[in-house]
Order: sequence, then structure tokens, then C-alpha cells
Amino acid sequence: MDYVYGPGRNHLFVPGPVNIPEQVLRAMNRNNEDYRSPAVPALTKTLLEDVKKIFKTTSGTPFLFPTTGTGAWESALTNTLSPGDRIVSFLIGQFSLLWIDQQQRLNFKVDVIESEWGEGAKLDVLAAKLAADTDHTIKAVCIVHNETATGVTNDLSLVRRILDEYRHPALFLVDGVSSICALDFRMDDWGVDVALTGSQKALSLPTGIGIVCASPRALEASKTAKSLRVFFDWKDYLKFYNLGTYWPYTPSIQLLYGLRAALDLVFEEGLENVIARHKRLGQATRLAVEAWGLKNCTQKEEWHSDTVTAVVVPPYIDSAEIVRRAWKRYNLSLGLGLNKVAGKVFRIGHLGNLNELQLLGCLAGVEMILKDVGYPVKLGSGVAAASSYLQNNIPLIPSRI
Amino acid sequence: MDYVYGPGRNHLFVPGPVNIPEQVLRAMNRNNEDYRSPAVPALTKTLLEDVKKIFKTTSGTPFLFPTTGTGAWESALTNTLSPGDRIVSFLIGQFSLLWIDQQQRLNFKVDVIESEWGEGAKLDVLAAKLAADTDHTIKAVCIVHNETATGVTNDLSLVRRILDEYRHPALFLVDGVSSICALDFRMDDWGVDVALTGSQKALSLPTGIGIVCASPRALEASKTAKSLRVFFDWKDYLKFYNLGTYWPYTPSIQLLYGLRAALDLVFEEGLENVIARHKRLGQATRLAVEAWGLKNCTQKEEWHSDTVTAVVVPPYIDSAEIVRRAWKRYNLSLGLGLNKVAGKVFRIGHLGNLNELQLLGCLAGVEMILKDVGYPVKLGSGVAAASSYLQNNIPLIPSRI
Amino acid sequence: MDYVYGPGRNHLFVPGPVNIPEQVLRAMNRNNEDYRSPAVPALTKTLLEDVKKIFKTTSGTPFLFPTTGTGAWESALTNTLSPGDRIVSFLIGQFSLLWIDQQQRLNFKVDVIESEWGEGAKLDVLAAKLAADTDHTIKAVCIVHNETATGVTNDLSLVRRILDEYRHPALFLVDGVSSICALDFRMDDWGVDVALTGSQKALSLPTGIGIVCASPRALEASKTAKSLRVFFDWKDYLKFYNLGTYWPYTPSIQLLYGLRAALDLVFEEGLENVIARHKRLGQATRLAVEAWGLKNCTQKEEWHSDTVTAVVVPPYIDSAEIVRRAWKRYNLSLGLGLNKVAGKVFRIGHLGNLNELQLLGCLAGVEMILKDVGYPVKLGSGVAAASSYLQNNIPLIPSRI
Amino acid sequence: MDYVYGPGRNHLFVPGPVNIPEQVLRAMNRNNEDYRSPAVPALTKTLLEDVKKIFKTTSGTPFLFPTTGTGAWESALTNTLSPGDRIVSFLIGQFSLLWIDQQQRLNFKVDVIESEWGEGAKLDVLAAKLAADTDHTIKAVCIVHNETATGVTNDLSLVRRILDEYRHPALFLVDGVSSICALDFRMDDWGVDVALTGSQKALSLPTGIGIVCASPRALEASKTAKSLRVFFDWKDYLKFYNLGTYWPYTPSIQLLYGLRAALDLVFEEGLENVIARHKRLGQATRLAVEAWGLKNCTQKEEWHSDTVTAVVVPPYIDSAEIVRRAWKRYNLSLGLGLNKVAGKVFRIGHLGNLNELQLLGCLAGVEMILKDVGYPVKLGSGVAAASSYLQNNIPLIPSRI
Repeated sequence: MDYVYGPGRNHLFVPGPVNIPEQVLRAMNRNNEDYRSPAVPALTKTLLEDVKKIFKTTSGTPFLFPTTGTGAWESALTNTLSPGDRIVSFLIGQFSLLWIDQQQRLNFKVDVIESEWGEGAKLDVLAAKLAADTDHTIKAVCIVHNETATGVTNDLSLVRRILDEYRHPALFLVDGVSSICALDFRMDDWGVDVALTGSQKALSLPTGIGIVCASPRALEASKTAKSLRVFFDWKDYLKFYNLGTYWPYTPSIQLLYGLRAALDLVFEEGLENVIARHKRLGQATRLAVEAWGLKNCTQKEEWHSDTVTAVVVPPYIDSAEIVRRAWKRYNLSLGLGLNKVAGKVFRIGHLGNLNELQLLGCLAGVEMILKDVGYPVKLGSGVAAASSYLQNNIPLIPSRI
Repeated sequence: MDYVYGPGRNHLFVPGPVNIPEQVLRAMNRNNEDYRSPAVPALTKTLLEDVKKIFKTTSGTPFLFPTTGTGAWESALTNTLSPGDRIVSFLIGQFSLLWIDQQQRLNFKVDVIESEWGEGAKLDVLAAKLAADTDHTIKAVCIVHNETATGVTNDLSLVRRILDEYRHPALFLVDGVSSICALDFRMDDWGVDVALTGSQKALSLPTGIGIVCASPRALEASKTAKSLRVFFDWKDYLKFYNLGTYWPYTPSIQLLYGLRAALDLVFEEGLENVIARHKRLGQATRLAVEAWGLKNCTQKEEWHSDTVTAVVVPPYIDSAEIVRRAWKRYNLSLGLGLNKVAGKVFRIGHLGNLNELQLLGCLAGVEMILKDVGYPVKLGSGVAAASSYLQNNIPLIPSRI
Repeated sequence: MDYVYGPGRNHLFVPGPVNIPEQVLRAMNRNNEDYRSPAVPALTKTLLEDVKKIFKTTSGTPFLFPTTGTGAWESALTNTLSPGDRIVSFLIGQFSLLWIDQQQRLNFKVDVIESEWGEGAKLDVLAAKLAADTDHTIKAVCIVHNETATGVTNDLSLVRRILDEYRHPALFLVDGVSSICALDFRMDDWGVDVALTGSQKALSLPTGIGIVCASPRALEASKTAKSLRVFFDWKDYLKFYNLGTYWPYTPSIQLLYGLRAALDLVFEEGLENVIARHKRLGQATRLAVEAWGLKNCTQKEEWHSDTVTAVVVPPYIDSAEIVRRAWKRYNLSLGLGLNKVAGKVFRIGHLGNLNELQLLGCLAGVEMILKDVGYPVKLGSGVAAASSYLQNNIPLIPSRI
Repeated sequence: MDYVYGPGRNHLFVPGPVNIPEQVLRAMNRNNEDYRSPAVPALTKTLLEDVKKIFKTTSGTPFLFPTTGTGAWESALTNTLSPGDRIVSFLIGQFSLLWIDQQQRLNFKVDVIESEWGEGAKLDVLAAKLAADTDHTIKAVCIVHNETATGVTNDLSLVRRILDEYRHPALFLVDGVSSICALDFRMDDWGVDVALTGSQKALSLPTGIGIVCASPRALEASKTAKSLRVFFDWKDYLKFYNLGTYWPYTPSIQLLYGLRAALDLVFEEGLENVIARHKRLGQATRLAVEAWGLKNCTQKEEWHSDTVTAVVVPPYIDSAEIVRRAWKRYNLSLGLGLNKVAGKVFRIGHLGNLNELQLLGCLAGVEMILKDVGYPVKLGSGVAAASSYLQNNIPLIPSRI
């Protein structure tokens, strides 16, 4: 199955699944274990404690579902809502679209607040809706923190402020798939009721754990939520938490040890340093794009994402051709433009366990590809812009000082 | 996290998750990849083709859900049935109990046909129900092929014969979690409509893929089934199958390569040889149990399972103590007795990538533990009974002749 | 290259290379590193400190040569002796024979003291030689602590006593390849001048590190020893030890991290517990051999080896056929009889990271093979003898109490 | 031991040990095996056949010593020469210096032909010596193909031409440590008598195999060479080659499987494509150095090495500080200047399993470091020079067309 072999490392710059550090690969290189032995619950206990730190919550209850982000979405919705419930949801790109599709198929009544792709969530429309909803028919507000398709980050603190302003009791549900553990995210401070992410994103693991974190209000809501659910039901997990055995069904032993290693790396670097590193990589990427004379899909600076940059190509270029060439000639994996922006943007993921020189290698590759496809880029220009910024801002590696 | 370290290999004899062969661990020891590159679909295509072989189906459509067996159950049910549908389900042990619990929570009307734990499914009661159901209100018959809690294997060909006898159109849904790829299982021959298994069982992978295979009738049923579903919906997969990209959301790259390696091993050994090996290991285990003077939880020989043996201990012994000692003193992982048989049985799993000498080491361990806990076993008796049988029946390893 | 695939684990019971624990495999699963960075010397420093503990020396200086046991022998000899030097060397089996062959080819004048294979070193002959050597023409006494070909362990404390008795200044050189870190070995207490082992033996690593430990007297001797040497020269290492960079040429990064993990496991279990475990496994094996009615190649109990047992087969059986069948039918790797005992003995290695149930699985396999080849063994008899002993003697795993 | 952890990949650009591809890491992730089973000889046989291809020899005999390059040197010398033999050896940098040191310590009479560091071997001096040596007292000519300390590649075809011109029977011994399998090397065409390399260089494995290849003349010479040797003796290997068991002592099982994978990758890419890739990476590096306004340590273009570039820094900069900063701030491993060029050069290794974007990331890093240490580099200039060349010259990855 290595018929696609190319020499050297694959340069993985899709916005997930991302590069797995060797420490995590090592931790996962192991036989199965009996998950009912004392060892696995003891490990699980540390994971549940430590996962809360990356959500910045002390009151939340985390769940480690053997699933993907899509499953985590489903768990968030079905545990807190009942069919027919009215919810407000922001459509700003492909992943918010998919979540909304799920919300509708699960029989919720969704008020969709749509933005142009490349713009952030229209929070003023939310405010208006909440203001009008004096009966509190809106049961939840759903928002994607960082829209991976367009590289747009929404300001969640504003959502909370609006909810508070109208003293609205709607639950606040957040897709943090491409943000948590990479961008500034504060579950408790922002009063988020359910937040979720996937193991293959900022945590830099393989796909396979959908991490869902529920506030006390969300847990309370789950007691009466009528959406049918079994696999994704929090109740079964809570039962086994109380028993101290933690697992209603078989977890992936390898991913649990991998998660342990991944969390250890985050804490060794320091969560704030991790976030700062993502800021640095995001800014460097944007400077390169600017130097190339290309536009960021994100329309305003306030929405700029530090985990993924969607780059708009000129109309005479098919961005899918850029992605194809990247893979075929440079062993570089870039993100396609999806749905409305297919052919129009390509995406550079810069999240997870990644450093500056890896990014600069990617940027140098993108420059060559742009030239390949006929865009008159000055080779080295983006790298120069990025490295000028980085050379001033990269800290020493703490453990090596 | 190795605070539970003991010298030498852990002897893993729970009936799942089972021992992972080195070839599979090697295949999984890899970085993430872009699942939208040409490589992952090409790999996936081979997996879908080859997975059908272990279900013995040519007309079925397989799905590789990033989930566990519990999720695979949910996918089987929600894609083929609508809330309120009447189904018949056999309760013969803990796992059939859990599936029935799921069926009820998903709002199906379940006719439960209960057996004593240790007995097989009461197929005569099914016959009576089908005979009486001239209006065809029964939409599905659900059965666990091999009940992992009691070591009981049901004869699925009889279920099909009964359905045919009454020309009943009910769908035939089978949990093959601890049977498929280890016991004789024939999806097409037996007219099974949905069959499912989990990667951590006979395929000897980590937990994380719930394999669901649907007959054409089941696919047809899924078009009108009204159970709400998104993550587990076959429709989304079928859409991407048609596109040739295969994945509606991110799969685990590592598990896909692992599954490739696991299937290769099965085909290298030969599926019929794999099944014969399980028969051999099952028979050897039962002979040991008999030699110890203990009873098999399974009440009749026709139900004997070749993947797990539940051993009944004398009333003055707590079987949980046997499992504890196995782990604490011998680095041996045995299965607990669950629910109704808690304390009364312990279980020896003998499925997956396992050979005779591994099993004999386990049996020698069990003998010592039995003595530890006060059962007057003759040390060596079970090993002698098992090895007398095995010495006459182990074939040469084909690749080494 | 898996054309020799057989289902389940290979049962590796040759007396080296031995089973590698998962912890060590994990530690070695890594990319290369710059060995001149600060990280590798820091790691090396801990290894050199800790390796001394398994030699039970505080005054010795260890060297981690990228080589095998044969290379370690060469290093021991060429650093301490000059061509033409007279040495006394014991021939008691294939490995002492090979070492003597090396000694002769390196132009030392070797007084060979030969024993029957299966017997220990004739220490009385040594005493006589030393007594006669009032001019101290004997420069070194070379002895294999544990002869892997016959399963004979020599009593090194007696060698020291004899040397002391005659106040003889000869250097005391010990091959501890299949003893150190498994049998009781005390470099300082016994006044050993050079001791050596290989990574693939009791330390349970891959082949690739020849560990040589030199006493202060040996280091002193190396200053004047005239044997030509460069790769194996201690001088170059000592130079780099002083510089704090440790390596005169490129080491295997993977083996260094592997050695770190291996040492950690030894210390976690406790070196004395490791030695006790080997005693237990050795005794259990011997009891099984006795129960089968077969003879141990080792002629007296005092020489019994706790790391390898050479089993004598009846004259009508070719022991090589036993080894072949073990591999072909049972996925069991046993040791061949070598040289003088070829065809006459097969060997069961029981050293390294191994536990009791692994050994019992092996013994059960040997019984079946014995029957295969026509020896009238009672199946289960050896296992019963071994497990009767073990059941009384296995301690609880400390970390699991 | 991960206290030196930095986020993201380590950028390994020392000229060995080099990056190990995942395919090789996977192949090596395995337990030990009995090297006397039929499997290991069968594997070894394929390795010996295929290793000849990377030496471009059909008449040569390869040996896979469990050692490093230093050991391979020793094997080449001691098997072909006798103490006191006169040899000619070129001193052009640190590694040729170390080899000469070894030659002298092994008691050969070495005519050293010294060049300035940065210059190639003075072949005219060789010609003069050979012309004068009508008695054929010179037994061997020793040359380092590619001097890793200075980035100088010697033209071996000229050496052969000179030897032929004077019809001189001296053996032609070549250190190909940093050339074979990366640079054009032709053992048979150039009449090389012993060539050698190490696993951790172009083959991209861990350290641990010293590969030595002997011509028929060299084998003949080994029959009479009087240098003492055992571990490094070809004779023992040849004996076991004849027996078909191949190994006189225990090899590293893991490295054998790793070598199999490494050779497979070379053949999949195509040896000529591997060499072309190294040319491309070498040229790109030199263009970057030129763009930075720095000098290549190599004095003439004809000597430019395609596997390592030694970059001369201005006198006011300490090149060791560049290497330190690379590691401390950028997770980049560069090569130090050694001995005569310590502090004056730093080295960029570009050999082994490496691709263009990896190199460009490294070059971008070097630019930032140069700025860090006060050299007035224009950021992006080197990357632009390199990528302008590369963008015109990188082929599509054959397996992905």
C-alpha cells in the first residue's frame, strides 16, 4: 500500500488530520489490553482530569467517545435537545453547513443565520432573535468556533455577552474541532454548555476520539432531553464514571495511551505557549499570502484563523490543481476548497504539533506550485515575509535553554 | 503509565479486545495522512472488497464506521427500522441484553425471547411468533450469533430456515461481534440482512472500526427507515462510495492500514484455516475444563462457542477472585462473569490471532489460579487433556513446510 | 518477508536474542538524532551510570560498543593484553570454544583447560597452574560465566578465591553474555577485571550493543597493552568521556533509548527480583525435564544454569528434528545443539523479559514435539511438575498488589 | 528522556545519522527472532544480493557487519593488509584524518598525501608515487570518496585511471560512507577493491550495519593478509555463506528487516533517481549559499559534494553558535565544523531519504539563524535561489503520475 511512495517526509498541511508527534506514535505502539483491568480505569481517570484543562473548565464533565467530530456533534445535540426544539445555528462555511444538516436531520427546528463564506457569524442577527424570543423558545445556540473551510474564527465571548444581555437561557453549543487546544478557548469563562473537538486536530492524534465536554447545565438538560440515543448517550458514561470503571463499551486502548502522551506534550510546552505558537504560525502564513499578492478568504482581520488559512486564487486558476500538484510533485498535502469555494481557494492547515521550519518548507512549496500553475509569484517572497516575522518572534525552546 | 508493569508478555485471554499481531502493529505505526488524497480511497476500495469475503457475501455492502460494536448495533437498527417497529430479539446473555436495551431505547417494540443464561436462542418461540404474525407486523429478527458472556453460539442457518418456512419478510439482523472471521459465518447463504462486527475481535485490531454489512434488502429498507441518524447513516457513505472518495468524515488512517494488514493475514492463513484454528482452540479449552472437573456455562454441546468459554466455578469460589489473581500474580487477563453470572463464571477468550502454545500457557495459568483459590485441581490435568487433542490435530504451518 | 507467517505469537525460547518487551520496542520507535546535540550525551551519561548497577560495580568503567558479544570479547582481550601473552582459558562448550579460538587468532598463548561438555570449569587445574606460575607469566584468566551451549554456570567467586589464594596478579576476564542481569553476578565483590554482555540477552534488547566493563586494574593494563585495536579501543571512549560528549563514533540512537527503557524495567522490577525470577524459571524447566524422564546436559546440580537448559534426547532421536518441528508446527523457537552436542541436545532459553506462563506454554509445546518425534512422554507431565513448583513460588506482581 | 522536547519535527540536517523513513521504522518495529531459523538466512540472502546493486558490483562480495563506519574501515584494512604494509592515503578532512589515524595504529606504513581542507585529493602526487614505486611496495591506495567534514567529493575514476596507467597492483580501498547510494559510485567499473558504507547514511537506517564489499582481488588478498582479526574477519562470514546460514554471530534482526525496507525504497524510487535527487538537493543548497554571499568550504566546483555542504562563515562569527542556535531555537540539527574548520564552517547534510521541501525548510531556518548571529543576510534570498532552481527541476513523483 506504499504505491504512492515519494522520497522524504510527506508535508501534511491539511487542517486535520495533522502530524502525529513521535512521542504519541510511540505511546500507541502497543498490544490491546483488558479494559476491565485496574490499569485502564486508572489511566482514564487522569485523562478525564487533564482533558478539562485544555477546555479550560473545572465544572465541565468530559466524555471520550470512540468516534469522530461528526459523532461528537451528534452527542452534543442529542443529549441536550428534544426533537422539534428550536435552535439557532450559524452557517459560515462547509463544516457549519454539515452541522446544520445534522441538526435538521435530527429533527430540530433550525433558525439558520447565514453569512457569506469568508465572513464570521452574524452576531447581531442572533441578538435580534434573542431579543424577540421572550418566550425562550430558542433552546440552543450552535456555533462553529473556527470554520475550517474558510479559516474564520468567531468571537465566542461575544456570543456569551449577547446571551447574557438578553438573559436568555438557551444552551450554548460550540464546535471547537479546529480550535480547542490551539486557539484561545475558555469553556467556563464563556459559559459554553457543550464544547467538542476531535483527537486528530490540535491534539495531534489519529482520528478516533470525539471529545465532548458538558457544563452542569448541559448535564441537567440531558436528563430530560428526548432525542433518542444510546451509543452517544452521556448517561451510560456517567453510570460507569460512578462505578469507577469509566467505560460502557470498549475504548481504544491505543488512543487512550496516545491521548496521555499528547496531553503530556501540551502541558510540557504549556497550553499558553501552544496557543502562542499557533498565533505565530497563523500570522506568518498570512504575511506570506499577502506577499504573494493573494487574498485570504477571510474577509476581516478579526476573523483570521490561527489554525487554517484559506487562500483565494485568481479566477484563471483552479485551486484543485494546486492541491493535486502539491501532492504529485512536492509530497505536500494541502486542503481543497470545499463546496461554495471549491476551485477558488486552497487551504494551508497550520495546527497541531508543528513548528516554524515545517511551515516555511510548506510555504516554499506553495510558491513553486503557484509558479507551476501560472501565477506570477516571486519565489521566496512569501518565505521572506514569514521568516522576517518569525525571526523576531520565535522563542527559544524552553527545555533547551 | 506502566505502573502496572509485570515482567514478560501480558497473556490476554479476554474475549476482546484481543492480541494484535506484530504485522498489524507495524502497519499502524504511521503518521496521519490527508484522507482526500488519491491514496486513501484506493486503499479503502480494497478494504471494502476484501471485508465482504470475511462476511461471505458478494451482494452485501460493507460500511467501516469509526465506532465500536455498540455503534455498529445502532447503525444496523436505525438504518433499517422506524420508531415503533416491532422486532423480535433473543435474550441469552449480557450482550444480547445490552442490544435489547438499545433496541428499546431507540423506541422499537421488542418481543424479547428469553433463555436461561448458558442456553441458546429459543428458535421454536420464534417459529411460533412468525407463524402467528400473518400480518407481518414483525419487521426484524435480531440475534447475537455468539453470546460473549456465556459462550453460546446460535445456529443462524436455522433462523433463516424458520423465516423461510413462514415466508416471513422480517429483516434478519445479526450481531457477529465475536463470531465473524472466527466462526463459520455465511451472510449470503443464510440470508442475513445486516451483519456486524468490531475490529478488536477476530480481526485482531485495536478497537475503532464497527464493520456493518447490509444486504440489498437492508439497503432498500434504509431508504424508508424513519429512525433519526446522521453519524451512523448509510446514505452518506453510499453518496461518497459513488463519488469514489468513500468517506463522509475523517476515518482513522492507522486503522485502515491496520485492517489491510489484518485482512492480508487472514487470507494468507486462509479463512477456512482460521475457522478451523478457532474450532481447535475451542475444543482444547473445553477438554481442559472437563479435565478440571468444572462445568461449561454453555448447557449443550450444540451451542459450544469456539471463541469464548465461560467456566462455571463451584459455589464456594468467587470467580471474580480468579480474574483478579490471574492479573495480579500471573499477568493473565481473563474475562469476568457479567451480570447474572457475575461471580459464578470466568471466561477464557480464544479468538483472534492466537495459537496453541499461547492457549496452553493460559490453561496452565488457570490451573494454578484454581489451586490458589482452593479448588482441588490436579495441576497439569487440563493442559494434558488439551495438548493430547492438539498434538493430534495441529497442522504444520503452511508457509514453513 | 512475512512468508514464514504463522498465526499468533512466535514463542521465542532460544537463549538469545530474546523477547523484547513492548516498552523497549516503543522506546526504540524513533527517528535518528544528531548524536552531537546535548541530548544524546545527557542520555548516555545516565546509561553509563546505570549499567554499572547491573554489573554490581561502583569502580568499573563501562563501554557501550556498537557490536555483538564477539566484538565485546575482542575488546576485552585487545585492551588488556599484548600478543604473545599467556592466558588461561576454560573450554566447556561452544561459546568458550569460540572465545578460545578468538584468543588464539589474536596471538595469545592460551592454556586451555578443557572439560567434558556439560561439566563446569575445572578450577582445580587453574589452581595448579597458578600455583606453578610463580613468575606470573599468566596474564589473564578467561572464563565464560554461563556456557550457553550446555547450560553450565561456573562459580566465579571460586575463581577469585583461587586467584587470591595464590596472590596471582592475572587479570580476571569474564564472558557474562548469558548471565549478567539474569544470574547473580558481582563484578566488584568477585574482583572481575573485565566483564561483558550483549544487549540481546538478559537486557532483552535487539542485538547491537556489546557492553564491556573494566575494573581500574584493567584500565591500567590497557595503557600498556600492545594488541592493535582502534574500533574496540577503550582509549578513544575515555577521551570522549572526558570531553562529556561520550562517543568517538556514531552510536545507535535507537539502542540508547532502548537501553534506557530496558534498564528502567530492570530497576522497576528490582535486580534481585529479576535474578529470583530467572532462578524460578530455571528450576521449573529442570523439573519438567526430569518429569519427562530426560537428562539435563549439565552434569551436576551446582552447574545448573538459570538462563538456559540443554536437554539431552535419547540416542534414537535427532534433536535438530525437535527444533525443526517446534518451528514448523508450533511456532516455537528452541535452541539447537551445537558442535559436540549437535543432534544430541536441544536448548530451552529462559532468560530476559519472560514470565512463568510463557514458559509453561513452551513446555507444553516441547511435550507435544517429544511425542511427535516418538519419545514416549506423558503429555502434561512436565507442565505439572513445573507448575506445581511455580504455583508455590510465584510472587504477586509488586505493582499490582 | 524527552526533556529536550520541542514542538513539531526535529529538522535533521547533519550528514548522518539521517532521517529514517516511516517504512523503515515500521519494518524494524518487531520482536527478536531466532537467527538460526530458516527465515533469517532467506532474508539475508536477498539482502546480500541487493546490496551489491547499490555498490554497482556483480563480482563483489558484501558483508553486513554489526558495526559502524569505523568498524567497516577496520574490516577493510585488516582483511587485506599485513602489519608493516605500505599504503598511500589521502588526508583532506576529519574523516580521512581519522581513517589515517586508524591505519597508523594498525601498524601500516602510511604515505599521507595531504591537501588543504576544502580541496580534493592530490591525485598527481599519487601518480608520482606510483610511478616511482616500480617494486610495488605500495600495497593499497586508500581514499575517502566524499569527505563529510568539508563536503569534498573525489573523482574515483581518475584514481583507477592512474592505477591502470602505471599498471600498479595496489589494492584500491574506498570509504564510501557518505557517498554510496547517494552519489554516483561504481565499484566494478572503477575497479574498487574494497568499498564500504554505514547504514545510517544514504540508506537512511539507524546506525548498526557497516557494509563492506570486497572484490575478488580483495578476497584473494584476505587469504594471506596477516593483520589479526576475528570479529571483522571475512573468513568467518564466508564460511557461513557457504553453509547457507550466513551469520557467524548474532545479527540485529531489526536492522536486517530495516535494510530490506530501505533497499526496497531505493529500488522503488530507482537508484539513478536517488542519485539525481541528491544532485538536485546539492545544487539547490549551493545556490542558497551563494545567494547568502557565503563561501562553500569546497574550493572547486569539481569537488562539490551532493550529500553535504560545508558553509564558511565570516571570521566574526563562530559557526558553533549557529549550530547551537539551530537546535535551541529552530529544532534544526546542523553539522558542526570539525577540527581544523571548527568554528569556521557549519554543515548542511542533504543525504538520505529527504525531499526538496524539507531542504527548503532547513534553508529558511539557516537564514534566520544567520540573521540571529549578526550576518546581514537577506531573508528569503537563499530559499528563492534554491527554489528557482528546484521549481524547474523537480520531477513528478513517479508513483503519483
